[in-house]
Amino acid sequence: MALVKMVEHGEASAAVRAVFDDIMATRRTDWVNNFWKALASHPPTLARIWENVKQVMAAGALHPLVKEMLYVAVSVTNNCEYCIHSHTAAARAKGMTDAQFAELLAVVGLANETNRLADGYRIPVDPQFIPEHR
Amino acid sequence: MALVKMVEHGEASAAVRAVFDDIMATRRTDWVNNFWKALASHPPTLARIWENVKQVMAAGALHPLVKEMLYVAVSVTNNCEYCIHSHTAAARAKGMTDAQFAELLAVVGLANETNRLADGYRIPVDPQFIPEHR
Amino acid sequence: MALVKMVEHGEASAAVRAVFDDIMATRRTDWVNNFWKALASHPPTLARIWENVKQVMAAGALHPLVKEMLYVAVSVTNNCEYCIHSHTAAARAKGMTDAQFAELLAVVGLANETNRLADGYRIPVDPQFIPEHR
Amino acid sequence: MALVKMVEHGEASAAVRAVFDDIMATRRTDWVNNFWKALASHPPTLARIWENVKQVMAAGALHPLVKEMLYVAVSVTNNCEYCIHSHTAAARAKGMTDAQFAELLAVVGLANETNRLADGYRIPVDPQFIPEHR
Amino acid sequence: MALVKMVEHGEASAAVRAVFDDIMATRRTDWVNNFWKALASHPPTLARIWENVKQVMAAGALHPLVKEMLYVAVSVTNNCEYCIHSHTAAARAKGMTDAQFAELLAVVGLANETNRLADGYRIPVDPQFIPEHR
Amino acid sequence: MALVKMVEHGEASAAVRAVFDDIMATRRTDWVNNFWKALASHPPTLARIWENVKQVMAAGALHPLVKEMLYVAVSVTNNCEYCIHSHTAAARAKGMTDAQFAELLAVVGLANETNRLADGYRIPVDPQFIPEHR
Repeated sequence: MALVKMVEHGEASAAVRAVFDDIMATRRTDWVNNFWKALASHPPTLARIWENVKQVMAAGALHPLVKEMLYVAVSVTNNCEYCIHSHTAAARAKGMTDAQFAELLAVVGLANETNRLADGYRIPVDPQFIPEHR
Repeated sequence: MALVKMVEHGEASAAVRAVFDDIMATRRTDWVNNFWKALASHPPTLARIWENVKQVMAAGALHPLVKEMLYVAVSVTNNCEYCIHSHTAAARAKGMTDAQFAELLAVVGLANETNRLADGYRIPVDPQFIPEHR
Repeated sequence: MALVKMVEHGEASAAVRAVFDDIMATRRTDWVNNFWKALASHPPTLARIWENVKQVMAAGALHPLVKEMLYVAVSVTNNCEYCIHSHTAAARAKGMTDAQFAELLAVVGLANETNRLADGYRIPVDPQFIPEHR
Repeated sequence: MALVKMVEHGEASAAVRAVFDDIMATRRTDWVNNFWKALASHPPTLARIWENVKQVMAAGALHPLVKEMLYVAVSVTNNCEYCIHSHTAAARAKGMTDAQFAELLAVVGLANETNRLADGYRIPVDPQFIPEHR
Repeated sequence: MALVKMVEHGEASAAVRAVFDDIMATRRTDWVNNFWKALASHPPTLARIWENVKQVMAAGALHPLVKEMLYVAVSVTNNCEYCIHSHTAAARAKGMTDAQFAELLAVVGLANETNRLADGYRIPVDPQFIPEHR
Repeated sequence: MALVKMVEHGEASAAVRAVFDDIMATRRTDWVNNFWKALASHPPTLARIWENVKQVMAAGALHPLVKEMLYVAVSVTNNCEYCIHSHTAAARAKGMTDAQFAELLAVVGLANETNRLADGYRIPVDPQFIPEHR
């Protein structure tokens, strides 16, 4: 059970309801998931985080599906159960196939392995990898 | 300084040299980076990890550039200095632009933030996100 | 279900019971939570960890409520379900309000985000931040 | 060396300079630290993150010094070198004493220890800790 | 519920069944645990990971029980519920006693604590700890 | 540079010197490493942590070398540079061979990989792994 009371649309203040409505309009859905209902317990956080998500996850130099898969990669590395579920569902809704999901997890697993090999052996960064800014 | 002596091509055993040569051939480069030189201190690990990297990072259902960006996302979340440098360089070599790198880090940052909000509020997973396998 | 059998007060050895009694006396409660019952499966760990908690969490240069909130911040970052619940409850018992809890989680979320931006961009520490010890 | 070219005030666009100026005005300092100079390589990220920091770290239900200490607690748990330095300096500037810093790190260390004991023993959450929302 | 459909022996392809059979033969058991059934949703991952586990966890310079305990130490630090359960069970099957498990968790807890003290104080590595390779 | 002034033996208070002397006597060395010199900036932390280390790392149900290797496994997973160096050196002093170190890191790497596969696929714990306490 959540540590705060989740706010439903029907009982929300006008300000909270406006954010909920914007979430549904932006995502073209007719429901709001628990993440936002929990954040609605503190309206400034709800408004702020939604503004961030809307800006960061919009189509830009990266395709929205790639962004969702990056989100899944981070959430798996951090083992955030809620976020793994919500962002895997979002990625699937944006077209992620079974094979893509499997390859995504394979990369995440391997990266977590080689990260520790590089850290454990204390391997120095090759000068070839250092960018030259001048 | 690394915790093991790094093995250079000229002093490597035939087995190690064969892996080094395969790395260079596969990547079409004429040098081997420190990660592999350090792993070469334990040849079974060198051969095993290279086999994994070759299989997982090859083009498949996901584009190699997307795989490199997922690798960067994990490496940043784990703060692996070596891996951030090496995989950012690899992603740039595969065409990642400045704008894509900035958006990648923005997603990684935001995902790390919302992961903690979901964890901290102990938000229950919406039933809509649970896949139906049957 | 826990990986060890939890020890109840009635079945505890004299040494374990003495620690349980000290926990209840120090905290002015009439029950012992599962954390201590699980540690009681290995009495030296029970005694050692309780001694540490008693010393570190006592009022000192920091207010006990601030200490509990720091504990929550770490537990959320590590996603320790048990600890998030127990230390949030402890912080509330020491007076943490809903607004304070919301701001605490907002700081934790933001810190986790900017940590990754600083790590991902490999930003060098400004000399102004380096303390001068001499 | 950073993975992006850091933007100095003299070479910044008007939009970036406006954020830099707001940072200095808000903090009553006459310099901008590297974190913001690196984010300035992607102006939308600079503006967005600064807006978040300004909102989250402002005085509210929690004292700004407590917020800085929470920031340090997260940064230490994540081992973000840049953030440990910058937020410890910020906390000291807001009055954190040597004794408070030592107690802060003692709590962070202990929380990281007991988090793993709770996770490792798979200790179930006591029903007493579950909030009743209804 | 898993994010992929788990593959049972009776419905598996010949290639998957061959891996399942090798797992049971190598471990001298008559059942396959869920980890492998989930990986079987992507046969190349199943074959690859099993090959890695078989090679890395075999008796070598380290005793298999020591390897299982190292696995538990990592899994507890990452708070991987599945892995804590499966590798603790494996370690017990290889002879780990209650006292050894308690000491293992005590070391894991303490290491997580002192890691943060070393990181938080930014303690420089003593030159005596740097290996001399030449 | 450390965030606190490190305390040398010659300038230490009697209480700090007593701990330093006990460290050297217990370890049969004639020097104290930086970790303890930094903790000495807050004598209660120095005394407390040393007491914990002495108790937890002593020979018991686990061999001291196994305990050091567990310490390394955690430190690598957390990427604590200081601790990787100090505990690898300690493990080597207790007899860890090159081959053992390589296998230790191989297990740590693999565990970090499979932890994420188990988390990412949200694999349910097999009932066979759940201990029966009654």
